[in-house]
Amino acid sequence: MAGPQLNEAAQAALDRRFMAAAIRLSRRNAGRTSTNPSVGTIIVRDDGAGPMIVGTGVTAVGGRPHAETEALAEAGELARGATAYVTLEPCAHHGRTPPCANALVNAGIARVVGAASDPDPRVSGKGYAILRAAGVEVVEKVLAAEAAEQMAGYLTRSLKKRPEVTLKLALSSDGKIGRKGAGQVAITGEIARRDVYLMRAEADAILVGIGTALEDDPALTVRLPGLENRSPARIILDRQIRLPETSRLVSGVDRVPLYIAACLEADPHRRAALERAGARFIGTETYGGVVALPELLEDLAALGMASVLVEGGAKVAKAFLEEDLVDRIVLFQGPEAIGEDGIASPIDADHIPAGFRELRRMRFGEDSYAEWVRP
Amino acid sequence: MAGPQLNEAAQAALDRRFMAAAIRLSRRNAGRTSTNPSVGTIIVRDDGAGPMIVGTGVTAVGGRPHAETEALAEAGELARGATAYVTLEPCAHHGRTPPCANALVNAGIARVVGAASDPDPRVSGKGYAILRAAGVEVVEKVLAAEAAEQMAGYLTRSLKKRPEVTLKLALSSDGKIGRKGAGQVAITGEIARRDVYLMRAEADAILVGIGTALEDDPALTVRLPGLENRSPARIILDRQIRLPETSRLVSGVDRVPLYIAACLEADPHRRAALERAGARFIGTETYGGVVALPELLEDLAALGMASVLVEGGAKVAKAFLEEDLVDRIVLFQGPEAIGEDGIASPIDADHIPAGFRELRRMRFGEDSYAEWVRP
Repeated sequence: MAGPQLNEAAQAALDRRFMAAAIRLSRRNAGRTSTNPSVGTIIVRDDGAGPMIVGTGVTAVGGRPHAETEALAEAGELARGATAYVTLEPCAHHGRTPPCANALVNAGIARVVGAASDPDPRVSGKGYAILRAAGVEVVEKVLAAEAAEQMAGYLTRSLKKRPEVTLKLALSSDGKIGRKGAGQVAITGEIARRDVYLMRAEADAILVGIGTALEDDPALTVRLPGLENRSPARIILDRQIRLPETSRLVSGVDRVPLYIAACLEADPHRRAALERAGARFIGTETYGGVVALPELLEDLAALGMASVLVEGGAKVAKAFLEEDLVDRIVLFQGPEAIGEDGIASPIDADHIPAGFRELRRMRFGEDSYAEWVRP
Repeated sequence: MAGPQLNEAAQAALDRRFMAAAIRLSRRNAGRTSTNPSVGTIIVRDDGAGPMIVGTGVTAVGGRPHAETEALAEAGELARGATAYVTLEPCAHHGRTPPCANALVNAGIARVVGAASDPDPRVSGKGYAILRAAGVEVVEKVLAAEAAEQMAGYLTRSLKKRPEVTLKLALSSDGKIGRKGAGQVAITGEIARRDVYLMRAEADAILVGIGTALEDDPALTVRLPGLENRSPARIILDRQIRLPETSRLVSGVDRVPLYIAACLEADPHRRAALERAGARFIGTETYGGVVALPELLEDLAALGMASVLVEGGAKVAKAFLEEDLVDRIVLFQGPEAIGEDGIASPIDADHIPAGFRELRRMRFGEDSYAEWVRP
């Protein structure tokens, strides 16, 4: 960047500071960029009076244009000689518009600081190579883990050909997730509930088992002012197609997609009735009486889904854990006990499977929140 | 296969005959297998009295189980020593259920005759390798072109990371596709119209420009008894978001998904209004005032779409042709002339771009039908 030479440590500190801002910026469109990751870009120049942000960009809602395009447009001629902070390696494959790596070169960017690398084989390493070949200084992997955390769904789908799976459970103080035969039981308070809506708004799909669907008759939507349009697809594991047309899941299908994962042997009349009502079907294989989850997740990834929020019940949670298909565990715990007639949770904060590390713990009013991830 | 040894030519003729039957069978679920290709499998054994079909399978509606699973289940113990005809290389990657290649081995299949190879890097060559390693005789590429034609969408999406694009136009006898300012004009008869519905039912999406959407107010659905549930997603190229909420495209959104390809600069209030009505948005880049089509197609493939039927109008057809993004051209031509105030078609049967070969010509009542493809 034009301007005074900083010593190495001061420059590294500055890079981390601007990358942290780019990562915060990238959150803005999380969950709204379709199959593209939500990336942040900040363009900074220093003409001698200290660093100045001259352009910012985030992947547009719907996935395009990419963040770099927006930030470069904002910076205009001020991009010449400046530093671009990008949370993901700039794209390198040509469509009708030039790839972002070339756009950065063409705009005269002198230095690119990147966080995460792109596992897409059409990009991986090639974006940085285009920049270096054009004489742009490239610094990689600044706050790489923080950026990767922010686009975990995209990275998981690229690398593992399945969506990132978050298991979310709400536990009573005595470790129960509900009361037998009681339908939906409020375990956590209003603040925690709102946080769940935000989690839903950032996911591509919510998944529950047919037991939960029948017992609770949930809508599984985002009910927060301003975010009503952000409800992701709902997926029901329902191999025998027991979901009634009168359920809230089906009646909301005109606004939010509903997928039923069913098996071939299920009643074709039930299938036809639900298809007429607007539900879509995903064919599944079964294995010992349960839906084959790895195959289902592969099919969800092929449908463009990069993140799935598993919301219950106990049996489904247990199956995902046993099949080693959970990337992130989120536990809410409320202050009240449910007692003897409660449904036991398959896990609690003291019994998290090996390989997970605690990421954060918070309090939401009277409720506690804890989150674990694994690489 | 158990039974008499045939000479090479007789065996090859028999193989082609059964493979042709497997390909016909695979058509059954075309367009209904989500992101999996619709594959056909026929299991044949010969105990001395001539070949006998003991099992048939087609990829299940929704994509799973795969065809091999169904055919092996039907054949049961009769699969031992038999020949399996598969229109696509059997899958080779493990999920919760064993891959089809192993399932064929485990069932005691002695010989596998395959048509198309799978370009998916997790399968390509590996399915056949598993079979050969287990001592199964493998014959590849029997009617490979015919099988590939049947799963062109799947193969295009795997190889080119975009859906197969079919351009469909209905021309008057004087080469016009409509009358200026006249809305929808019936150019072809009832039989051709029904054929278009069948084409729609087998596609993953129908795409039109906003001009056609405004002029014709089309529903773009499948209106054939028994196929009402088979309407694919509708995609409108509408970079400035001009589609009215009162259009038939929007009012049908509770039953059939509607995607609007719009650009960042479009009015956010129009976007919000259409999102409330149930439409989904795909962010696009524009290039010289038009939507950047290669990027859009890449995003559609990422959403799981393997085949797109482009239905107009002239400007959109021309853009797809100029960008070299058309894999298949279908022209209907009716008997009546439209005359001077007609909208000229960008192509006709005498002006098909280089590289396309004629696949078939048919008559539908008074209308003619012709189809061209290119590799």
